[in-house]
Amino acid sequence: EIADLLLPDVPQVLAGKHITITAGPTREDIDPVRYITNHSSGKMGYALAKASQQLGAKVTLISGPVDLTPPENVKTILVSSAQDMHNTVMQNIKDSDIFVACAAVADYRPKQNATQKIKKSEQELTLTFVKNPDILSDVAHLPDPPFTVGFAAETQNLREYALGKLSRKKLNMIAANDVSNKTIGFNSEQNALTVFWPKGEKQLNIADKNLLATQLMKIVAEKFEETQTEDATFV
Amino acid sequence: EIADLLLPDVPQVLAGKHITITAGPTREDIDPVRYITNHSSGKMGYALAKASQQLGAKVTLISGPVDLTPPENVKTILVSSAQDMHNTVMQNIKDSDIFVACAAVADYRPKQNATQKIKKSEQELTLTFVKNPDILSDVAHLPDPPFTVGFAAETQNLREYALGKLSRKKLNMIAANDVSNKTIGFNSEQNALTVFWPKGEKQLNIADKNLLATQLMKIVAEKFEETQTEDATFV
Repeated sequence: EIADLLLPDVPQVLAGKHITITAGPTREDIDPVRYITNHSSGKMGYALAKASQQLGAKVTLISGPVDLTPPENVKTILVSSAQDMHNTVMQNIKDSDIFVACAAVADYRPKQNATQKIKKSEQELTLTFVKNPDILSDVAHLPDPPFTVGFAAETQNLREYALGKLSRKKLNMIAANDVSNKTIGFNSEQNALTVFWPKGEKQLNIADKNLLATQLMKIVAEKFEETQTEDATFV
Repeated sequence: EIADLLLPDVPQVLAGKHITITAGPTREDIDPVRYITNHSSGKMGYALAKASQQLGAKVTLISGPVDLTPPENVKTILVSSAQDMHNTVMQNIKDSDIFVACAAVADYRPKQNATQKIKKSEQELTLTFVKNPDILSDVAHLPDPPFTVGFAAETQNLREYALGKLSRKKLNMIAANDVSNKTIGFNSEQNALTVFWPKGEKQLNIADKNLLATQLMKIVAEKFEETQTEDATFV
């Protein structure tokens, strides 16, 4: 695209790095017709994949069902449910330096996935849901985990939830956005993020998701390099 | 489009008729982030709206959330939940001659729609759902109902369910399709239908949804005219 050609040279701060990124929602089947999903459009995750590739990384994008064209020069794997995504991430994560979990993974799935369409007969219907595997936490708790970045989409107490998630899931970084603000986030072209890591934070103001993705991946590159240096100190 | 220009003249069998058509899925919010929906793409309903307009009708299309461009010369109203769709249909149905309920309306909605994102804490989560209003039945049971056409998307016992629905909901016609067949139906460009009315039935073999829509609306036009003649006999 012309816009891309007019961009200044992008610093190759992620050259030689393999980054795995998840994007989009997941779909949890109730029966062959109905499913539970969420408002994630996948735009932020796809922008992160594109930005990472432009910053020099080898990128694997693992995406739930979205209406987006896979970015060029990015290995894109399409999945549907949280369990599919978990399996695919675990199969692909071993040689990743950095993992960015941007997908809005369903926390729960229906306990039973009916093989035939459920007929409506009762005035009320009760469904039981069970917890899905926690992809982000499972990656961060691997014996030799990649630099792991999570996302927190919240409607209230954003900072508290984000910091809790950073610590509880042993993440290197978390990017938090307030999805109660309709002008940013899920289906918008724009977003705003507050990025937290164990020793600091940075506010990324409202901007086009592509620009924001590049800003975020530059911070990831910087903090990733710091962890490499820290590790080296202890050798 | 060129393809449209090359079509033979379409007989204006629906000239002077006002047709209201519903299309697409509905979305039932669980909380600000999550919702229940279904695999309806809206393609069949949009094809029916386009076919009806080309056959001479004045068309109102009431559509759930889909990724389709509204057909030209069709009044399109976008809605989200089953309750939204019910309200919009009821406000628009009074001067309709024909009602075609092609939308895959959610039978149930969550009893409580949480205003804040539900946090995952429990291993299991139980949600209670309540029945949505039955748009098709409510229209067919109006004091002076339009000619009412329903759809039945089933994964088993197609004929039995379709005939039961035709009779129970007092419909003039029902078009049934087998959504367990992945080559037709929900996200496909093609479909196949069995059309039932109180005194007969017709099989419409697998075809492009646009062609199938024209075939179906021609049958609707014919059966609608028969009911008008029958009514006249009793005057």
